Amino acid sequence: MERSVDSERHKLNISALRMSKLDAFFCSLPSQVLLLTGYWPVMGVSAALFTVEGEVHLLVPEDEEEIAEQTSRATRTVFRPTGLDAISDAQSEIGGPLIELVRKLKLDSSKIGIEVGQWMQPASYAAMSVYLSGLQDILRAEFLNLQLIPADRELEQLKASKTPCELEKIRTAARIAGAAFEEGGRQIEAGRREPEIASSFQCALDRTPLAASAQRSYGFFFCMSGPHAARASAAYARTRQRTVQDGDTVMVHCNSCADGFWTDITRTYVAGRPDAQQEDMQAAIMDARRAALDAIAPGAKARDIDCAARSVLKRRNFGKEFKHSTGHGVGFAAANPNGLPRIHPASPDVLSEGMTFNIEPAIYLDGYGGMRHCDMVGVRKTGAEVFTNF
Amino acid sequence: MERSVDSERHKLNISALRMSKLDAFFCSLPSQVLLLTGYWPVMGVSAALFTVEGEVHLLVPEDEEEIAEQTSRATRTVFRPTGLDAISDAQSEIGGPLIELVRKLKLDSSKIGIEVGQWMQPASYAAMSVYLSGLQDILRAEFLNLQLIPADRELEQLKASKTPCELEKIRTAARIAGAAFEEGGRQIEAGRREPEIASSFQCALDRTPLAASAQRSYGFFFCMSGPHAARASAAYARTRQRTVQDGDTVMVHCNSCADGFWTDITRTYVAGRPDAQQEDMQAAIMDARRAALDAIAPGAKARDIDCAARSVLKRRNFGKEFKHSTGHGVGFAAANPNGLPRIHPASPDVLSEGMTFNIEPAIYLDGYGGMRHCDMVGVRKTGAEVFTNF
Repeated sequence: MERSVDSERHKLNISALRMSKLDAFFCSLPSQVLLLTGYWPVMGVSAALFTVEGEVHLLVPEDEEEIAEQTSRATRTVFRPTGLDAISDAQSEIGGPLIELVRKLKLDSSKIGIEVGQWMQPASYAAMSVYLSGLQDILRAEFLNLQLIPADRELEQLKASKTPCELEKIRTAARIAGAAFEEGGRQIEAGRREPEIASSFQCALDRTPLAASAQRSYGFFFCMSGPHAARASAAYARTRQRTVQDGDTVMVHCNSCADGFWTDITRTYVAGRPDAQQEDMQAAIMDARRAALDAIAPGAKARDIDCAARSVLKRRNFGKEFKHSTGHGVGFAAANPNGLPRIHPASPDVLSEGMTFNIEPAIYLDGYGGMRHCDMVGVRKTGAEVFTNF
Repeated sequence: MERSVDSERHKLNISALRMSKLDAFFCSLPSQVLLLTGYWPVMGVSAALFTVEGEVHLLVPEDEEEIAEQTSRATRTVFRPTGLDAISDAQSEIGGPLIELVRKLKLDSSKIGIEVGQWMQPASYAAMSVYLSGLQDILRAEFLNLQLIPADRELEQLKASKTPCELEKIRTAARIAGAAFEEGGRQIEAGRREPEIASSFQCALDRTPLAASAQRSYGFFFCMSGPHAARASAAYARTRQRTVQDGDTVMVHCNSCADGFWTDITRTYVAGRPDAQQEDMQAAIMDARRAALDAIAPGAKARDIDCAARSVLKRRNFGKEFKHSTGHGVGFAAANPNGLPRIHPASPDVLSEGMTFNIEPAIYLDGYGGMRHCDMVGVRKTGAEVFTNF
C-alpha cells in the first residue's frame, strides 16, 4: 500500500491555495482530510492543515496513528481524546495542539480556507464524529487577526480531478466490487427476499481476497425489485423485505470503497427470462450508455454527455422515465448528486483528464419496475476509461 | 411499526426547552432530528424545528417523505433538493421553506437552541450530508434579532434517557443482533480469516426475518483475533486480513440499529479449547460484568458502576489491562465514548430510569490477545435490564 500525499495532489492543493489567495486550508471532515493529507480518518476526529508553502500537518488521535502513518506522509501531531484519569473529548484535546500548530506555522494572522456549508461524507465507520463549527470557533477565539474564509467551492473543485495514485484506489474499489457482482449475480432468482440478494453480494465483497489490496475496503449493497426498482430514482437506495417474483426487474446498487475512494455502481437483472419490454429497456439503456461513453473526452461539455444519453432514451420513448441526471462526480464521496463534474442537462462543467464520475442511464416505470446501469468512469486523454467493465 | 414523536419524548423535549429558557430547538444532524421528530433521516439533508409550545416541524426531501411519514407525526414541509431543470442542492432548496417556517411560527426574534460542537453521528447510509453551519448562517443572515444559542449540552442530556417507545427500538436492535451472534458464533474456527468470520455474522443479521420488525435495520460487524484483539481498546474496531490460529481469542464487535436506535455489543470466543489463562480471563470478565450489573439502579453513581467492574479486574490482577471505562451511553449513537451516562472512574453522572448504556469489561494483553464482553443495558426501577442476554 502506497503512502499518499502524492506529489501531484500536493501540487494541485498548493496551486488552489495560490489561485484563491489563501495561506492554508484547515479541514476536519474525513474526505477533506483525505484530500489534504492522503489519510482517511476512521472516527472523524482528525484535522488537517495544508499551507501554501506545501507544509502538510495532520492532527490525529493516538489510536488512529498507525493507519495514518501507513497512508500519509503528513507531519503528525498526536492527541489523546480520552483516558481514565479524567473525562474529556476530542474537541477539548485537539484544541491545544491545534492552536500551537497555527502559532508554530506563523498562521496566526493569515487567511485560512475552511469548510462551512453542506457536505456529503461517505461512512468511514459505524459512526462518525463531526466538529460542526467547534474547531473553527476555537481558532476564532484564540487568534483575533486570523481570517477564516469559506472555501467549500475550492475544496469541491479540487476533488473533481484525481491524481494517478487516487485513480488507482478507485480502480481497486471497482475491482473489489466486481468480484462481488460476479458472485452475487448468480444468486438472483424468484423466491428470494431483497435482503437475501443484497447479502449475497455483500458477503462476496467482504470475503474476496482482493480486499487485501487496500488497507480499508468495504462496501454497501442494496437490492430493489419489481415496483421497488421503479422507485430507485431517489437519492438513496433501499432494501426492503419484498420477495422477488418471477419476471421482476432486480436492481442491485453498490457503493464500494478502498481507503476512502469510492465507487457508485448499479446492475439490473431480471428474475427469469426477460420479456420483450424488458429487452427493449435493456437495449435502450445500453445504447444510452454507449452514447454517453463515446462522448467523453477532455474538453467535452458535461451537459453534452447528459444529452447524448438522454437523446437515445427519448428517441426510444423512455425520455420521461429517465428521471435524473446521467451522472455526477464520484470518488471522494460515495453518493453526492453535486459532485463535480455534474453530468446534468444544466451543467456548466467541462470535462478534464483525471475526472471520475458515474454514468447511470435508467428507466423507471411506476408500479412495474426499473432498470439502471451505473458505471464508474474516468476521463483519459483518449476518452472514457470504464472502471467497471463487468 | 409505530409512528413516533411519542408523547413521553414530546414532554421531555418541551421541559428541556423550558428549563433552558429557549423558544425552540433547531437541528439537522440525523440523530438530533430523530430526537426531535421520531424520524431518522436517510441522507442527512432533513432538519427539525421543535418549539416550546410543542409544535414539531420536519423539513424533509421529497424522496424521504414516505419513510418520514411512517415514523413521525411531525408536521412536514417537503422540499426538492434537485431536479432536471436546473442544478441545485439541499442547502439552497431548504433555505426558503426554513425561513418561511421560522416566520410562520413567529420565531424571528426568538432564542433557538442549536448544535454547534463535536457530535458523533451513526452511519445512516453509505454517505451522509452535514450542513455544518450552513443552515444557521442562513437564519442569521435573514433574522437579525434571532438568537442562535449553543444547546449541545441540553441535546446530549435529552438523549441520555429513553422513553418506552425508544427502549423498544433498542430491544429490537439487540434482538436482531442476537440472531446474528447465534448463527455467526458457530462459524468461528482456526483457519478462517477475520473478514470471513465478520461476514458470517453480517450475513446472518442481513438475512434474519427479525429485521422486518423495524423499518430500517442493519448492523456493522468487526472481527479481531489474537494480537489484533489485544489492540481492540481503540475507539474503533477493525477487521484485518489475519487468519485465525488455533487457540486465538476471537473478538466480534457489533453495532446494530433499528430505525436510528443503536446497540454496542461484543463477544469474545476462543478458536479451539480455551487454555487456563483464557479461562481465567473469561471468569474475571464475567465476574466484573456481574458486579457492574448488580450495582445498576436509579440513583446509583455512574462511577460506582465503573468501580464495581474495575475492582473485580484489579483483584484478579487484570487492573492495568482493563484500559478503558466500563461503559458509556448508547442508543442515539452507535459509538460515542462521551454518550451519557459515562460509566467512567471520573464520571459525575447519576443513573436514572430509562438510561441505556453498554457495560464492557475487557482485558487486553499486548501481543497475546484480548477479551471483551460488551452488553447493552437499561436502567429500570428494579435494576439493570440486559438487552443482550445471549
